Amino acid sequence: MDIKQEIQKRGDFFNKELEEFLREGSPKALYNAARHLPLAGGKRLRPVLAMISCEAVKGDIINVIPLSISLELIHNFTLVHDDIMDKSKLRRGLPSVHIKFGEPTAIIAGDLLFTKAFESMHNTIGDLKVFKNVEYGLINCIREICEGQQLDMEFEKRKIVSEEEYLEMIRKKTAVFFKYAAEAGSLLGGGSKEQVNALSQYGISLGLGFQIWDDFLDVSSNEETLGKDIGNDIRNGKKTLIACHCLNKAKGDEKKKLEKIFGNLNASDKEVKKVYTLFKKLRSAEYAKKTAISYCNTAKKSLEILPDTEAKQILNAFAEYSISREK
Amino acid sequence: MDIKQEIQKRGDFFNKELEEFLREGSPKALYNAARHLPLAGGKRLRPVLAMISCEAVKGDIINVIPLSISLELIHNFTLVHDDIMDKSKLRRGLPSVHIKFGEPTAIIAGDLLFTKAFESMHNTIGDLKVFKNVEYGLINCIREICEGQQLDMEFEKRKIVSEEEYLEMIRKKTAVFFKYAAEAGSLLGGGSKEQVNALSQYGISLGLGFQIWDDFLDVSSNEETLGKDIGNDIRNGKKTLIACHCLNKAKGDEKKKLEKIFGNLNASDKEVKKVYTLFKKLRSAEYAKKTAISYCNTAKKSLEILPDTEAKQILNAFAEYSISREK
Repeated sequence: MDIKQEIQKRGDFFNKELEEFLREGSPKALYNAARHLPLAGGKRLRPVLAMISCEAVKGDIINVIPLSISLELIHNFTLVHDDIMDKSKLRRGLPSVHIKFGEPTAIIAGDLLFTKAFESMHNTIGDLKVFKNVEYGLINCIREICEGQQLDMEFEKRKIVSEEEYLEMIRKKTAVFFKYAAEAGSLLGGGSKEQVNALSQYGISLGLGFQIWDDFLDVSSNEETLGKDIGNDIRNGKKTLIACHCLNKAKGDEKKKLEKIFGNLNASDKEVKKVYTLFKKLRSAEYAKKTAISYCNTAKKSLEILPDTEAKQILNAFAEYSISREK
Repeated sequence: MDIKQEIQKRGDFFNKELEEFLREGSPKALYNAARHLPLAGGKRLRPVLAMISCEAVKGDIINVIPLSISLELIHNFTLVHDDIMDKSKLRRGLPSVHIKFGEPTAIIAGDLLFTKAFESMHNTIGDLKVFKNVEYGLINCIREICEGQQLDMEFEKRKIVSEEEYLEMIRKKTAVFFKYAAEAGSLLGGGSKEQVNALSQYGISLGLGFQIWDDFLDVSSNEETLGKDIGNDIRNGKKTLIACHCLNKAKGDEKKKLEKIFGNLNASDKEVKKVYTLFKKLRSAEYAKKTAISYCNTAKKSLEILPDTEAKQILNAFAEYSISREK
């Protein structure tokens, strides 16, 4: 099985539905700003996860289209607002929304995407009790994403963050959304309580593994990019699992040095390199890699009770892909 | 009947419910930021309007508490984000959220209020079909508020705006929310189709009248404040009904002068005063006053088909209050 192809197949199908839903509107500038990011591509992992979870309980994929659109719009709304907060200038290789359309319009564009996500949810067909239940899950999920984003920002300003705190932050900021996508996808697909629970467990572990692998990739990437990406993260004091591990393991002089450089916006390239070397020496990168793999194994284990379908195979491959991808 | 007292009585009741709903949470800074504005008071006009509309169809007020909380939270979320866009430093006599908590946290706090508004809607009791219908109305309403805010910003940059364009802008930015409050309040109160329609008509006219009266108040207020409030609006090129009327009526030299000063951030106090005098000379302020009164009369007329209740009297007084208040 070619997992990338399986994701892409569903992603292509999803893109047509999204384009159909997210039409132009008036005022033109606002709708152009709102459409800019969602129609610029992206891996569509959340919608695809919802679709495959629906398939895994032998549900009809048509039932999860409104949900899938909603997931992608919420994801994009958070990106638009996060980019303003982080002053990020690029996203998906294009100028971020606030750079292209100005900050005021970008704020409203994010709000509009938020609104459109709920509009899409209302296209859900079938039992109203299920609809209400699924929508309530989405609301809780967005609340946790907001809380997670705030934690992420607060952690950057803190000297030290424990592994538990870090895990709680990425659980909220990233993993609950994967959990929700898998859970809601299987619920709308008509899955049994046991099946929905299994996919929910799968989603949360996958989300944690996925995010930690991202952290690992950032540090293990080509040293040539060190000055750019990793350097920025180190200077901003970004609390990845690697940084948390290293900050908690370092002792004596190394600890002092680390605390002096990490989160120091004016750190020199040489200093940044020192931290990078320490990440390796204290095996922090290796620790993150192992942790990501462990979460993805837990994710795969959650799938065992599901019926044998192609979708189940894809979900297994999805988990493996999450901890083998190089970007 | 003392309309202010009737509003306040319901406002006080509402405040207790809101406080109960909008509890502290974690991360503390995020929840403090989100609670800052909604718990700082305010007239609570939207929740109160929903309550009285429910009473006017002889509904039980308990049915509209979740809706009322939702309305106030949405209103506050738009204020938090608008203050960032407009760089406003004060709101309800307190530092605005982004001034007190920083812009990034203010953006998320607005998003959290948005989320909590939907969370509150889910506490609605009764028929699920009605719930879905009412929630869908809210979604449409927020979409129009976003569109209206964008139009408002775009109009500031334009030389001239027609009266029709202005009315469309305030319809979206302000009036649809009054319309929705009255409509949804009566729907959840169990009103008939005819009654709900009457309250919907009442709400839109009231909202238009209310906003235009605000415009009128800004210009008719004490000349001592001219240098501050009106001066800012004139320098920013804010398109109130008065400005639109004046820009469209002015001819020849007056038109040229007006176009030169209006929207010019560097206009002197003397120049601002010239525009102010022109507003009076071309009877633009008077025109706005008349228009506001006319909308509020239409609002009152919409109520005729409702049964005679105390609530109906309050709604009539509410419309009159909207065009007699001095702040």
